Amino acid sequence: MGKKNIVFVGILASSDSLEKLKINYGYIAIEQGKITKTGSIKEFERLAESGTFSGYQIIKLSANQFIIPGFVDCHTHAPQFPNIGLGLDRPLLEWLAKYTFPLEKRYKDTEFAAKVYDQVVQRLLRNGTTTACYFGSLHVDGTLELVKSAIKHHQRALIGKVSMNKENDAGYYNNTKQELADVETFVKSVISYQNELVEPVVTPRFAVSCDKELMDGLSEIANKYNSKIQSHISENLSEIEYVLQTNPDCKSYGDVYNKSQILNNRCIMAHAVHLTDEELTLLSAKGVSVAHCPASNTRLKSGLCPVRRIIDSNITVGLGTDVAGGDNASILDAIRRTMDVSTCLEMQGRPKYSLNWREAFYLATLGGAQALNLGDRIGNFDVGKDFDALLVDVYAKGSQIDQFAGALEKTDDEHAVELLEKFIFLGDDRNIVQVYVKGNLVKDTL
Amino acid sequence: MGKKNIVFVGILASSDSLEKLKINYGYIAIEQGKITKTGSIKEFERLAESGTFSGYQIIKLSANQFIIPGFVDCHTHAPQFPNIGLGLDRPLLEWLAKYTFPLEKRYKDTEFAAKVYDQVVQRLLRNGTTTACYFGSLHVDGTLELVKSAIKHHQRALIGKVSMNKENDAGYYNNTKQELADVETFVKSVISYQNELVEPVVTPRFAVSCDKELMDGLSEIANKYNSKIQSHISENLSEIEYVLQTNPDCKSYGDVYNKSQILNNRCIMAHAVHLTDEELTLLSAKGVSVAHCPASNTRLKSGLCPVRRIIDSNITVGLGTDVAGGDNASILDAIRRTMDVSTCLEMQGRPKYSLNWREAFYLATLGGAQALNLGDRIGNFDVGKDFDALLVDVYAKGSQIDQFAGALEKTDDEHAVELLEKFIFLGDDRNIVQVYVKGNLVKDTL
Ligand SMILES: [Zn+2]
Ligand SMILES: [Zn+2]
Repeated sequence: MGKKNIVFVGILASSDSLEKLKINYGYIAIEQGKITKTGSIKEFERLAESGTFSGYQIIKLSANQFIIPGFVDCHTHAPQFPNIGLGLDRPLLEWLAKYTFPLEKRYKDTEFAAKVYDQVVQRLLRNGTTTACYFGSLHVDGTLELVKSAIKHHQRALIGKVSMNKENDAGYYNNTKQELADVETFVKSVISYQNELVEPVVTPRFAVSCDKELMDGLSEIANKYNSKIQSHISENLSEIEYVLQTNPDCKSYGDVYNKSQILNNRCIMAHAVHLTDEELTLLSAKGVSVAHCPASNTRLKSGLCPVRRIIDSNITVGLGTDVAGGDNASILDAIRRTMDVSTCLEMQGRPKYSLNWREAFYLATLGGAQALNLGDRIGNFDVGKDFDALLVDVYAKGSQIDQFAGALEKTDDEHAVELLEKFIFLGDDRNIVQVYVKGNLVKDTL
Repeated sequence: MGKKNIVFVGILASSDSLEKLKINYGYIAIEQGKITKTGSIKEFERLAESGTFSGYQIIKLSANQFIIPGFVDCHTHAPQFPNIGLGLDRPLLEWLAKYTFPLEKRYKDTEFAAKVYDQVVQRLLRNGTTTACYFGSLHVDGTLELVKSAIKHHQRALIGKVSMNKENDAGYYNNTKQELADVETFVKSVISYQNELVEPVVTPRFAVSCDKELMDGLSEIANKYNSKIQSHISENLSEIEYVLQTNPDCKSYGDVYNKSQILNNRCIMAHAVHLTDEELTLLSAKGVSVAHCPASNTRLKSGLCPVRRIIDSNITVGLGTDVAGGDNASILDAIRRTMDVSTCLEMQGRPKYSLNWREAFYLATLGGAQALNLGDRIGNFDVGKDFDALLVDVYAKGSQIDQFAGALEKTDDEHAVELLEKFIFLGDDRNIVQVYVKGNLVKDTL
């Protein structure tokens, strides 16, 4: 797990923007976890000959391997993992009451929390998620176990203790004063670990579970510690109706959050399925990011999120798995379902609305990094960034992708694109043979 | 690979109908590949005590394992597997011309064909597809290699040599007389193998590639040998337009096939995305089955197939992966995307339109068996049927499904349902630890 200096030589793929996917044969050099050089194969050979890489570990990729940036999961619920795949026959508010709150309550038990979270973090790393933005539970100590797991396994993580102060059947909420004190305790504790990969996020669950007093206070804490703040917005029609009913002075769901000063450029909102044009303008003006969670939106029948429209509104978008509303803990699945949902909307009559695999790949990497305000540190292979990356072997033994000998001849460039395409459409964790976070090797099945 | 007598004891799950999923703790006894007895655990214990199962292999499932019927893939293209995941940015007719026909032409080379098909059959068996209804290529000998692979690996298979007689840019077609002779040769060859698991299917590619003279002749051959007949219908709007233009005397796409006597109760049509009410009535009256292929319909932007409406029209429906228009060779994926697509249609305003996981599971097993007229031989665990089945281990080592100790208490019945649910939503080939076709063990990673 040391931070050796490494050079990878072979196919590199990463995005510069939504429109621009770069795939090339070249090299990338890493010193102390940071990308220090990158260039063509010829340049590598010249530098290697002149001794530049003496003392480096040199990893020459095979013809069917490539390096891509690590995946960024902008929205998932660590305590809900035991419920993954269960109970997806109910709409959001029923599902929360019946399946989610009773499970989340159990994380008062820190031993239980520690065990589950250790599995969750390792699962995500195996799936290539080098950065995750997590919702924890209501509990300070339970959620600190998630912080410890992320630190232990070297995952880059934004972690929030969930805040709720409105009564519910499960009795899963806190009184306002206690809650604000708990959040501040949590934030301070995370900061006290002084871990460069992990930071706290202030996390009002959503306006259904939090009143204005609580949200005002949370906004102050986030400002005081300059921390990020995350919540859910406009996921489901019943939810929106309830929020508007309980906030009669607000003209929209977005307005509820805005009145508590929550909307700013450190804010990440999940879903945004049913936003009005006015709300999109508001989020864009405030610099809010959106975590697009297509799996859970379909599984809970919340709606088809118009992600192209959100992007076109100048809002930064990343992808989220939203486990356990989402039924899959891999960003590869989120990529595919981003294509699916946007294609459905296109087929229903919106021309050129779908996102292609190149665009969805961008959202899963650089888009997600930018959505979490980490675009200057991760997301692609620009020199100076941390090396968060996946080594993919398209025909890894035992994987779902078969190699057929003697298929049609391809140029090297066509071959490189097709490898990435095959991985995006049908790869899984078996094809991700190495995972690096800031140069640390955190998965290795090579 | 012998046909031992076996008894499985543990959780069994199978469908009696679209509405009725049966999950119970019990036993199932197999003699010479056929199901001879099934009942409760108590009955098993009584029979075991009285010596009924002496000489049987007794397999006691663990608490996290269960047995389900093998998956039935009602529509896939074996020669297109090398293209899986590639070129999915073009609509159907362009995609065929650019990616598909050039690849399929290569199966004139029987050595190439033999290698690819051997991998395809093994891939599908690993994925739990015990029965597949295949399109081959235009070539008799090439497609006979697929027949040989299915026989070699003990897969239940319906296999068609593809027929086309209309000119295309790739030069991938046949003249009518030669084509009819070739099809008869192919059908006779398959019959001559006298293999109980494999049968020939007459396979006009679709009305875009076949004129009336060819289809009339193919219909006669199918009748002469009492064989099944398969094709594509109403997948994509440009395709439909072309078919109607080139058949000005026909009032619908369905009418084109009907005029050639192709529509009958031995006929399986893939897609059926854009059928009119009249066409649905026609297909229902003729007893035609539909292979629903949600993955390829979305990937090629063909449309959202209204599968609930097709079922409600009294048409038998099974699922198809439709590789390589579809990007995934697992029926588990087809199950999930059947839920996705029908949910999208529900979210767009059709109440109670989505299929839930129980219904999609039925389509993947008994529904598919019935669509291929094999409902009396496979599809569930009725006594007298062949034993085509999967042994699933939900927490198989290395799989995507994590077991979290100490989650909420469940009753045995709840536990059994949740196991199946987890597998349906997030399992993969790693969870399918044994596969049986007519009692033959064809995959074993237990
Ligand atoms: Zn969420
Ligand atoms: Zn097809």
